Amino acid sequence: MTRVVRVDIAHAPYDILIGKNLLSVADRISSLLPQPRVAIVSNTTVAPLYMQPLVASLEAQGIVCQQIILPDGEKYKTWESLNLIMDALLTERAERKTTLIALGGGVIGDMTGFAAAIYQRGVPFIQIPTTLLAQVDSSVGGKTAINHPLGKNMIGAFYQPRLVLADIDSLSTLPDREFSAGMAEVIKYGLIDDPEFLAWLEVNMDGLMARDEVLLAEAIERCCQNKARIVAADEKETGQRALLNLGHTFGHAIEAGMGYGVWLHGEAVAAGMVLAAYASQALGHLITQDVERVIAILKKTKLPVVSPSLGGAARFKELMAQDKKVDAGRIKFILLRQLGEAYIGELPESAIDSALLAACEADK
Amino acid sequence: MTRVVRVDIAHAPYDILIGKNLLSVADRISSLLPQPRVAIVSNTTVAPLYMQPLVASLEAQGIVCQQIILPDGEKYKTWESLNLIMDALLTERAERKTTLIALGGGVIGDMTGFAAAIYQRGVPFIQIPTTLLAQVDSSVGGKTAINHPLGKNMIGAFYQPRLVLADIDSLSTLPDREFSAGMAEVIKYGLIDDPEFLAWLEVNMDGLMARDEVLLAEAIERCCQNKARIVAADEKETGQRALLNLGHTFGHAIEAGMGYGVWLHGEAVAAGMVLAAYASQALGHLITQDVERVIAILKKTKLPVVSPSLGGAARFKELMAQDKKVDAGRIKFILLRQLGEAYIGELPESAIDSALLAACEADK
Repeated sequence: MTRVVRVDIAHAPYDILIGKNLLSVADRISSLLPQPRVAIVSNTTVAPLYMQPLVASLEAQGIVCQQIILPDGEKYKTWESLNLIMDALLTERAERKTTLIALGGGVIGDMTGFAAAIYQRGVPFIQIPTTLLAQVDSSVGGKTAINHPLGKNMIGAFYQPRLVLADIDSLSTLPDREFSAGMAEVIKYGLIDDPEFLAWLEVNMDGLMARDEVLLAEAIERCCQNKARIVAADEKETGQRALLNLGHTFGHAIEAGMGYGVWLHGEAVAAGMVLAAYASQALGHLITQDVERVIAILKKTKLPVVSPSLGGAARFKELMAQDKKVDAGRIKFILLRQLGEAYIGELPESAIDSALLAACEADK
Repeated sequence: MTRVVRVDIAHAPYDILIGKNLLSVADRISSLLPQPRVAIVSNTTVAPLYMQPLVASLEAQGIVCQQIILPDGEKYKTWESLNLIMDALLTERAERKTTLIALGGGVIGDMTGFAAAIYQRGVPFIQIPTTLLAQVDSSVGGKTAINHPLGKNMIGAFYQPRLVLADIDSLSTLPDREFSAGMAEVIKYGLIDDPEFLAWLEVNMDGLMARDEVLLAEAIERCCQNKARIVAADEKETGQRALLNLGHTFGHAIEAGMGYGVWLHGEAVAAGMVLAAYASQALGHLITQDVERVIAILKKTKLPVVSPSLGGAARFKELMAQDKKVDAGRIKFILLRQLGEAYIGELPESAIDSALLAACEADK
C-alpha cells in the first residue's frame, strides 16, 4: 500500500509517495512531465542499483532519459559537481521544460534540486530519495544547496520538487552506517515537537534497526507528515522551520571542522543533538535523565554521542559562527524546553562551554 | 523631481526611482534594510566614480558597508566572478539579513542579483543601475544570471530586488558606445507594443543622443512603465514576458558566436532586431518601409544594423538552438506583426535564411 503525504505549500503543493516498487512505476512521474524528457542525476553508488529499472520504466512510456552520474559523497557537494550537471544539461540541450530527477541520497537531492533551481532560471524537479535520511528529511521541503569551504549549505535556493517518491525497497541496500545516520533525523522529529513519536521510537527501535518494512514505512510517513506541516507553515524559514535544525549548528561545525564527508551528516547531527541537550540542561530546561534518554536512543541506533573537540572550544565556536542562523553576529540555537518541545534561542557563552565540556572527547 | 514606477509583482512589489542625485541620498535605501549592513558589488570602472558617495551616504546613517569590486565586462559574467562574490561574503560573514547592492551596469546587476538569490538561499537585494541599458531594462523584473560557454544567461534565477535606484546623473560618465547600446533596449519597447513611444523616439532621438536629461528621464520612465506592466503580468516568463526578448535570440547567438564582450549586449540586440524585422518581412508581416524604419532609428543611435555572419547560416542556427526559448527542439522567436506589435512564433527555415541573407555581412 502506498502512503501519501501532501506538502501544502501555497504556490506549489506536491505529494510524497511512500511505498514499495515505486521506482519501476513511471506512471506517476510521466503524468507530471511538461515534456517527455528527463535528466536523471545520480551517483556511482546508487546508479548501478536503481538507474536501470527507473530508465526502463520511463522509456517504456516514451520518455527520453539523459543520465548524469556524479561521484559519491558529501565532499563532492561542490561548485565543481554542480558545474558537471550544468555542462551535461547544456551539451545535451536540456530545455526549460525538461524535468530533473534526483536519484540518490541527500547530497544528490540537494545538488540536483539546486541545479533545477538555476538551470535556465528554473526547470521542473522530482525527488527519488534512496536513503533513509533523504526520505525522512532532505528530499522534502525544497531546501537545496551546495557546500562552500567556509560553510555547509551556504549556497543554494528554496526550490520545491513536484513529487517525492520514497521507495522503501531502496533502503534494503543501504549500508548500516548510512541507515543509522538517517535515524538521527528520524529521532530529531520526536525531540522537536512529537513526544509521542519519540516514545514510539524508543519502543520500536530494535525493529526499525532490523529494517522491518512496516515499521519503517510508519516512521517515514510520520516524519514526512511532521516536516510537511512545518514547511507548509514557513517555507522560507522565517520562523518555526528553523526548529528542524535541532543539532545542526553544532553538527555543521563538526562536518566543516572534520572535513566534509569524514562524519556523515546524520552522525554529526546526532552528536550535535547531544550537545544541544547538554546546553539545554545548562539552561535549566532538561534534567540529567532527559539528556540520558537522548543519548540512550542515539546509542541504540549506533550513532555517535560524543563529539570531536575540533581543536578546542574556541575553534568549535568559530565554526558555528559561520552558520546561516546568525543575526547581527549572534547565533540562534535550537534548544529543548523539554523532550518533544524545541525552541529557538540564544546560548550564553557559559552554556556552550558547559555543553562542549560534557559532550566532546577530551582534547589531546 | 524623482519619478516613481511601481513594479506590482504580487509576492514582492517594489519601486523604481528615477531622478538625480539619488546615489548620495541613502534614506530610501536604509529604510528597507533588515539590518544596518550591506555588501556593495561593483566593478573597476564604476567603483572609482560612484562607490565613494554611496558609501559615505550609507555610513552617515550608521550602515556598515562591505565593498566587492569585480573586473569589468561581459566576459567576466561567469561562475568564477560569482564565486568571488561568495568568497567575499563568507569571509566577511555576511548574514541572511545583509542586503546586497548592485552598483553598475547589466553585468553587475545580473551577477549580484544571482548572488543574492543563492547566498544562504536568498538575501535582500537592491539595484543601482548606472548604465542606460541597466536603467531601462536589466535592473527591472528580477531576471538574474551568469553566462556559460555554451549559452548566454543559462544559469540564473528569477529574483526580485527590493528597490531600483536609477540615477540619471550616472549616465553623464557613460561612454558613447555603452550609451548607444542602452538605446537598443529603449527602441525595443517601442517596437514590442508601444508604437506611440516609437514615434516619440523618432522625433526626439537627436536630443536623447545629446543626453538631454529631461528627455532621458522621460524615456527611462516610459521603458520602466512598460517593463513593469509586462513583468507584473508574467513574472516567470510563461507567456507574454518573452516579448521583451525581441532581437535577443539572434543577439545571443551573436554574443556567444563572437565571444562574450566583443559585441556589447545592446549592439547584438540591435542587429538582432534588424534580423527579426527581416524575418517578419519574409513572413509577410512587415513591408520594406517598416524594415527601413527600424534600421533608420538604430542607425541614428550609431548601433550596428548588419550582423556578423558567424561563419555561415548553419553555425548561426546552431548557436540560436542553444537559446532558452526552445521547446521540443523548436526555437520560439519574437516577431513583429507590425511595428509596435510583437508576437511569439516559430520561423520556417526559409524565413531564417532569408533574414540572415539580408542582414548579415557577406561571408568571406
